[in-house]
Amino acid sequence: KVYSVLKSELLEDPSFEFTDESRQWIDRMLDYNVPGGKLNRGLSVIDSYKLLSEGKNLTENEVFLASALGWCIEWLQAYFLVLDDIMDGSHTRRGQPCWFRVDKVGMIAVNDGVVLRNHIPRILKNHFREKAYYVDLLELFNEVEFQTSSGQMIDLITTLQGEKDLSKYTLPVHRRIVQYKTAYYSFYLPVACALLMAGENLDDHTLVKDVLIEMGTYFQVQDDYLDCFGDPEVIGKIGTDIEDFKCSWLVVQALERANEDQKKFLYENYGKADPACVAKIKALYKELDLETVFAEYESKSYEKLISSIEAHPSKAVQAVLKSFLGKIYKRQK
Amino acid sequence: KVYSVLKSELLEDPSFEFTDESRQWIDRMLDYNVPGGKLNRGLSVIDSYKLLSEGKNLTENEVFLASALGWCIEWLQAYFLVLDDIMDGSHTRRGQPCWFRVDKVGMIAVNDGVVLRNHIPRILKNHFREKAYYVDLLELFNEVEFQTSSGQMIDLITTLQGEKDLSKYTLPVHRRIVQYKTAYYSFYLPVACALLMAGENLDDHTLVKDVLIEMGTYFQVQDDYLDCFGDPEVIGKIGTDIEDFKCSWLVVQALERANEDQKKFLYENYGKADPACVAKIKALYKELDLETVFAEYESKSYEKLISSIEAHPSKAVQAVLKSFLGKIYKRQK
Ligand SMILES: [Mg+2]
Ligand SMILES: [Mg+2]
Ligand SMILES: [Mg+2]
Ligand SMILES: [Mg+2]
Ligand SMILES: [Mg+2]
Ligand SMILES: [Mg+2]
Repeated sequence: KVYSVLKSELLEDPSFEFTDESRQWIDRMLDYNVPGGKLNRGLSVIDSYKLLSEGKNLTENEVFLASALGWCIEWLQAYFLVLDDIMDGSHTRRGQPCWFRVDKVGMIAVNDGVVLRNHIPRILKNHFREKAYYVDLLELFNEVEFQTSSGQMIDLITTLQGEKDLSKYTLPVHRRIVQYKTAYYSFYLPVACALLMAGENLDDHTLVKDVLIEMGTYFQVQDDYLDCFGDPEVIGKIGTDIEDFKCSWLVVQALERANEDQKKFLYENYGKADPACVAKIKALYKELDLETVFAEYESKSYEKLISSIEAHPSKAVQAVLKSFLGKIYKRQK
Repeated sequence: KVYSVLKSELLEDPSFEFTDESRQWIDRMLDYNVPGGKLNRGLSVIDSYKLLSEGKNLTENEVFLASALGWCIEWLQAYFLVLDDIMDGSHTRRGQPCWFRVDKVGMIAVNDGVVLRNHIPRILKNHFREKAYYVDLLELFNEVEFQTSSGQMIDLITTLQGEKDLSKYTLPVHRRIVQYKTAYYSFYLPVACALLMAGENLDDHTLVKDVLIEMGTYFQVQDDYLDCFGDPEVIGKIGTDIEDFKCSWLVVQALERANEDQKKFLYENYGKADPACVAKIKALYKELDLETVFAEYESKSYEKLISSIEAHPSKAVQAVLKSFLGKIYKRQK
């Protein structure tokens, strides 16, 4: 419902004279790329804001504004995904062809990504122009987008180099890619939006930021783990990180633990489309007992996160962070 | 000089942990794409600000800030051009291969475009955070980027349709593409930056905006004209608008003036790589006397612009606009 309100405002934006064709194009492009996800990031803004308001009933307007910020994050995500699929040469996304693979779209998708991005400040201007936290909101989205594109950059460069030299895949590099490419916009941004709406100054919440970045990193490690060891029936797709030469947490851990022979074996078989090579890599992961390594990482991360969260002075903030953590701990999909 | 200051700040941005490789990548990507142009847009900010200050000597800091805004426009332009070249499948730009054609770059260029864009709010934050006009500056860049990407969108969609049906190329469509894709960021944005620095409220300057948009449109019509009728020796490149099926002012005028036979002829020969087809189109343009049509358009535009400019109450603003117009009137390149 909020989505359709925001969409109609964008389709009637007075800063641009639409032609019928361009209005239809945007309409279709938005419906194809913006809703359709799990909306986790968007819903988190509302959930977090509710918890920060500690039992006070939210007004209709507050719910609308929190939802609008949630949708801005979904728009941001759509922008990243449309462009990421082009860069990765992907074929499908959310069970349908990637937008740039749709007939007549092709490289126009690059500009559509840019248009998606440009919708965010339009939405913010339409609904938050008069709020005391308006500049902070603009700066927050700008900073998080900068961090995400920077993370994407090291991901792209590292993969370029890793293809020649697997030893470029190290734990600090993996941590950096994950933190910047995923954690800021998926974990920190929703809560930061809720904090701004609640009148908080983000400079006072570095602990919250650190915890959420840590959680986002943990989430991505799970993602890497499930890509190989998860049940395809449950996660709804078949992982291809090994074939795709991904700088996955698993290959990084394997490199850390491998002896010289096993390293050679990794160099020879990682990133090959051949199913026999993939099977060999998976066998080596089991040999190196990465399942146990992951289980230990998981419980250690959880303990660390819980104790950081409980060190926070505000019970409401604790509730926000614990609710987030509860959603992802030991997830199977 | 200002460029190197801005660049080093970006390469040391505390919001991101660079790896050596990523710092080098950005360094090279910036040098390849950001300077190197004619810098017209960037220099216009300083020129305009000087004229608005009416003879007062600018402080070193004012010159630095005006230059920084000028560079932001060059950054914006680099972002648009990197992505436009990908979408158009172009080969060269400013006498060198397009960035995405450079070895090892490829589709990483999509993200590099995004990074270029993200540098703008970083620069603005670093140098304008404390200014009263900071929010206006953020909104100005946001709005102009939105307009440019919207103009790019109708350009892309129109060309897609024009390839099947040339009758989609009409004067209102051409005007819209040019106005949004070029005029806002190339003409309005530099002067708007200078006005903000001079403490003006942009809402009070709709006349200035209208005049600059009109001037930008005139500039692009010249560009379209010179692509076919200019001297390649003087403009430094050989036009390919006819081959490329561009929605050029010339083809739009030709369609307006053609009889049924000539229209058929246009439909059959426009947008073909074959030099014989191109020659036929050029012959038809001469037959329809588009040279005279252009000369009349040029003098009418000039008169209209001059009288609008002279209607403006401020002599300083008049000087800014006349200086702009003087640079482009009857240009041969
Ligand atoms: Mg991808
Ligand atoms: Mg990717
Ligand atoms: Mg994955
Ligand atoms: Mg082009
Ligand atoms: Mg183009
Ligand atoms: Mg041209």
